[in-house]
Amino acid sequence: MVEVSIIGGSGYTGGELLRILSNHPKVEIRYVTSRKLDGVPVTKIHKNLKGMEPLENLTFKNIPPEDIDSDIVFCATPHGVSMKIVPTLYEKDVRIIDLSGDYRFEDIEIYEKWYGIKHTGKLDAVYGLPEIHRESIKRAKLVANPGCFPTGAILLLTPLVKEDIVEENIVIDSKTGVSGAGISPTDTTHFPNINENVIPYKITSHRHTPEIEKELKKLSNRDIKVFFTPHLVPITRGILTTAHVFLREEIDKEGLIEIYRKFYRRDPFIRIFEEDIPSLTGVRGTNFCDIAIEVDKNRRAVLVSAIDNLVKGASGQGVQNMNIMMGFDEREGLWFGGLAP
Amino acid sequence: MVEVSIIGGSGYTGGELLRILSNHPKVEIRYVTSRKLDGVPVTKIHKNLKGMEPLENLTFKNIPPEDIDSDIVFCATPHGVSMKIVPTLYEKDVRIIDLSGDYRFEDIEIYEKWYGIKHTGKLDAVYGLPEIHRESIKRAKLVANPGCFPTGAILLLTPLVKEDIVEENIVIDSKTGVSGAGISPTDTTHFPNINENVIPYKITSHRHTPEIEKELKKLSNRDIKVFFTPHLVPITRGILTTAHVFLREEIDKEGLIEIYRKFYRRDPFIRIFEEDIPSLTGVRGTNFCDIAIEVDKNRRAVLVSAIDNLVKGASGQGVQNMNIMMGFDEREGLWFGGLAP
Amino acid sequence: MVEVSIIGGSGYTGGELLRILSNHPKVEIRYVTSRKLDGVPVTKIHKNLKGMEPLENLTFKNIPPEDIDSDIVFCATPHGVSMKIVPTLYEKDVRIIDLSGDYRFEDIEIYEKWYGIKHTGKLDAVYGLPEIHRESIKRAKLVANPGCFPTGAILLLTPLVKEDIVEENIVIDSKTGVSGAGISPTDTTHFPNINENVIPYKITSHRHTPEIEKELKKLSNRDIKVFFTPHLVPITRGILTTAHVFLREEIDKEGLIEIYRKFYRRDPFIRIFEEDIPSLTGVRGTNFCDIAIEVDKNRRAVLVSAIDNLVKGASGQGVQNMNIMMGFDEREGLWFGGLAP
Amino acid sequence: MVEVSIIGGSGYTGGELLRILSNHPKVEIRYVTSRKLDGVPVTKIHKNLKGMEPLENLTFKNIPPEDIDSDIVFCATPHGVSMKIVPTLYEKDVRIIDLSGDYRFEDIEIYEKWYGIKHTGKLDAVYGLPEIHRESIKRAKLVANPGCFPTGAILLLTPLVKEDIVEENIVIDSKTGVSGAGISPTDTTHFPNINENVIPYKITSHRHTPEIEKELKKLSNRDIKVFFTPHLVPITRGILTTAHVFLREEIDKEGLIEIYRKFYRRDPFIRIFEEDIPSLTGVRGTNFCDIAIEVDKNRRAVLVSAIDNLVKGASGQGVQNMNIMMGFDEREGLWFGGLAP
Repeated sequence: MVEVSIIGGSGYTGGELLRILSNHPKVEIRYVTSRKLDGVPVTKIHKNLKGMEPLENLTFKNIPPEDIDSDIVFCATPHGVSMKIVPTLYEKDVRIIDLSGDYRFEDIEIYEKWYGIKHTGKLDAVYGLPEIHRESIKRAKLVANPGCFPTGAILLLTPLVKEDIVEENIVIDSKTGVSGAGISPTDTTHFPNINENVIPYKITSHRHTPEIEKELKKLSNRDIKVFFTPHLVPITRGILTTAHVFLREEIDKEGLIEIYRKFYRRDPFIRIFEEDIPSLTGVRGTNFCDIAIEVDKNRRAVLVSAIDNLVKGASGQGVQNMNIMMGFDEREGLWFGGLAP
Repeated sequence: MVEVSIIGGSGYTGGELLRILSNHPKVEIRYVTSRKLDGVPVTKIHKNLKGMEPLENLTFKNIPPEDIDSDIVFCATPHGVSMKIVPTLYEKDVRIIDLSGDYRFEDIEIYEKWYGIKHTGKLDAVYGLPEIHRESIKRAKLVANPGCFPTGAILLLTPLVKEDIVEENIVIDSKTGVSGAGISPTDTTHFPNINENVIPYKITSHRHTPEIEKELKKLSNRDIKVFFTPHLVPITRGILTTAHVFLREEIDKEGLIEIYRKFYRRDPFIRIFEEDIPSLTGVRGTNFCDIAIEVDKNRRAVLVSAIDNLVKGASGQGVQNMNIMMGFDEREGLWFGGLAP
Repeated sequence: MVEVSIIGGSGYTGGELLRILSNHPKVEIRYVTSRKLDGVPVTKIHKNLKGMEPLENLTFKNIPPEDIDSDIVFCATPHGVSMKIVPTLYEKDVRIIDLSGDYRFEDIEIYEKWYGIKHTGKLDAVYGLPEIHRESIKRAKLVANPGCFPTGAILLLTPLVKEDIVEENIVIDSKTGVSGAGISPTDTTHFPNINENVIPYKITSHRHTPEIEKELKKLSNRDIKVFFTPHLVPITRGILTTAHVFLREEIDKEGLIEIYRKFYRRDPFIRIFEEDIPSLTGVRGTNFCDIAIEVDKNRRAVLVSAIDNLVKGASGQGVQNMNIMMGFDEREGLWFGGLAP
Repeated sequence: MVEVSIIGGSGYTGGELLRILSNHPKVEIRYVTSRKLDGVPVTKIHKNLKGMEPLENLTFKNIPPEDIDSDIVFCATPHGVSMKIVPTLYEKDVRIIDLSGDYRFEDIEIYEKWYGIKHTGKLDAVYGLPEIHRESIKRAKLVANPGCFPTGAILLLTPLVKEDIVEENIVIDSKTGVSGAGISPTDTTHFPNINENVIPYKITSHRHTPEIEKELKKLSNRDIKVFFTPHLVPITRGILTTAHVFLREEIDKEGLIEIYRKFYRRDPFIRIFEEDIPSLTGVRGTNFCDIAIEVDKNRRAVLVSAIDNLVKGASGQGVQNMNIMMGFDEREGLWFGGLAP
């Protein structure tokens, strides 16, 4: 059994970690922290988990990072908060999976520019996308869990970029559910504003742009320019990413699918669709990333990926990383089908 | 390991049985039948389960009931179809869980009147509501799995009716998700018709009325009249049932809750809410039935229950019944928290 | 031309008044007030009206009620705020339509008890439900525009109560869209909380209960007890009200419909459905109240009404009242069909 | 008064024509045809219009095109059906506005290739996008009303293409409401399938692609390649189009907006957003097309347009064309703000 703690357990990603970990056969949950909810039962906030012993006896604790001694610590804390906590944990005999953006960039300047936050200092971290960096994750002290949009986008584009068959301009148009905006109400997430609506936002300036770009650049021999535009759609969970790319050579759909099949042949959570186009229903509540590809006569390929933003796009991927770090089967605690319909 | 087959596996309840049973540690799925999809992989229809071995290798088979030899057979067939299949199964060494309405009534005349179908003949069946009929279910040859509305309504009202403290006129006003209408498109389920809408239907004549009434009558010393009105709301899963009852004596909220706590003290899937009012988010994808109660000065009690219509209201309850029949822990394969948000 | 001002024009009911009045051929909008948005163009907040001259040149003004000199003043202000403004207006040569609950009760004690607010003092006001109080509205100095739930419920029940054929216990179960909660985000209106959900609230204690009860009592020879339970459903606009009543005598559906037809024969905004059951799609954006009735053998009648909570349930009804007060055709500016689908 | 008939009045675009025309001060509706609903009152099908005299006395008629003698005939008939009706009308003294795709292409071969239908023969028709072809529409005998996606896309791109500042590869990623799929239920429009989902479809092969491309090519001095991918989102009305284009020269946002302002200076239904990004709420139920633009440092511009697919994308634009043909003010019957929220 591995002992696990969650720092910042009252939000959506914290709740999702609890939902997943409470079914994980090799995990014991030690601490779930919250500054504001000290002493409150976790199932009073996460009512969906009411009655699920042993969670039923678990309360939020307001304890500092230095007092947390678990094998694995998840930081389900916002950008800017993780960087105040992780350095303390880093000194201790724990391994850390940080769900914020704070340690995703090798180049702190890029982070500071796009996040508008002064960083407390770089630490040695592995970008936690298992399908790309599995070997490094195994040994990592600190895993920077990827952002939700980058997860869907990088998994969608990596095989093509690696094969060096795409032109440098890559257009990524994503549609995300509202849970990605977090648990706190805002004008945008006010039901009458987003219901029956599609809201494009930060259409040329979303901070997941450099995260996608730097990962793709690492894999490529040439310059890559990522043009990323997100849209909020009136659903709770899920990110559907449509990438529009231009190919450097003639290649048909079968050829492209073959590239994807080969690249992801050892990845249980990647499902390549050959006939249908995936949609969000199939991945709801799961750690899967579903992918489809079409290509037209003008060498434009349209790539589509579907993920659950709170699972593969956040907490599920965190548990997948934990499984890899602990030498468990990657699917442990995560091997369930989508809640469809 | 128990061998399980599903007759009629291409619809929503069939898909949900597959989703649940594929995670059940003591179950091996033998046959999944379909008349139209013979030879088609089940994950081609239920794409949410794609890649989930051993389902990946399973195909629908068009085989007659006489050739099905499993320990448990689920009939996920519509009203009127089950009654043509179950008699054959009943002759064989299998135990049957029928999800249709065909064997829910001891009095066939009531069935024929409300369903408008000539019945093929009564069989000895147990009404499969575990919290009320657990002991009979253990030994049952044939379990008639309850309807979705009756599950939420009967669980909500039984403790009060049993205590004999409600007046005879019971008003039940239910709000159901659209998956309850099944997998086939109709005018009502056409998105532009139900989206941004609330559709009351069969407001004095829904056939779940006599199913609720006959169960409550069994428990009561007096006449019970159930007035049931369903409404379709623009959600996919869930039934929220609001019962308006008048009390025969003064009793406060705490007293009522005490009655419920006591009645359901051995039932892991019943969660009594004392402070909050349950909603559908907490039961999404689960086998829980969440219950809350308020009472006002005029001796009116308002009772609320929340279930997932496809799980506790159909397939999950079927698996719960199977667990009881096989002597497994009732929670086996069903012990997960709600998909919230 | 009638000069109209709106006090508190930045919320949903203010916006809806602007939407309707900007198409009213006999209205000129004078002032739209806002304490926080002084100088801001109204179409910057109500973007749906962008480009609609003469609104395009209108800005919010932060001016006190004593400086407002229009023929008609709408108070689109919250409960508790209107009572601080209306007394000043009442001294001036203006006629007032107040959309809050502050002047709906003859008995201030009931108001203070249910609203938990100390009242500044009673004024002579007419309850602004045109179909019931048209004659008084014509001459009114101050109209108290009804609440959204009471509008749908009172219109639904008045003919039966007036005929004295219902038992005293009346159960009203309403389903409302989220715009009824106003323009400010809250936990309840946070999209992931109400999407895919049905939320019952204040299930025995909503303050619209006494408003419905006092109106019905006025029309009745006997005691009337209103048991009202509201539910929030994931739609933006609309209230669907289901009333469950018991009849004091045998009467069939045709007899009941005849009562309604007769009662509402002069009311253009009441549409009686004889075959179908109305739903919210047909009234979206309109001032209609659609009504249907069914009755079963046990003398229970189920009555259904559908309104748009922001139009007939608030601003549209306000304009209807204005039309009556000014001697215009009641339909002026309000005579358009529902936005379906 | 202009006499208007509608051929095929039972679907969404027919209903929307009735909703708009019933409020048009200069229109008298003569015939509304339907092959299946002969004699049925139009408000029995379009319940949202119940009680709206003179519609209340109008019934569907099954009459052939040769018997229709009105000033204007709208064909709200599907692709392939219009071409069997329009030639007959063309011989008569009527002017025709066809809402299908049948007369949108000068080059019949392109039509036949993309629609998979043998055409009955070309007629002289004007492509009915008033902002681009107003002068020709004035005199047109036959107007081919544009498709819903092309309306949003062409209006969005025309100013830039005309200025010759975009590279030839234009990526258009659209998100459409479900009403665009028509009134007949299908698997895709079945609520549980599209709710909580985003469904990309015909991602490289939608037949609106050549319609957009041929219009843009006419305006351009160079080759234009349109790459169009539509997505179905769980809303009823509205199309949000995001165009990703690369600029041939440095130009900032202000410069681009200036181009749009100038190009659309005489067009009341085009609203340019300078600060905010438009969304669907603001155009719901209206004939507006809202447009916004951003540009990043890599010379990529992201353009966004929002329309109501049934109004500006179909019936409203049809009425706008009729107004132009009859010499009315273009806004007549169409000058109302969006139904927000």
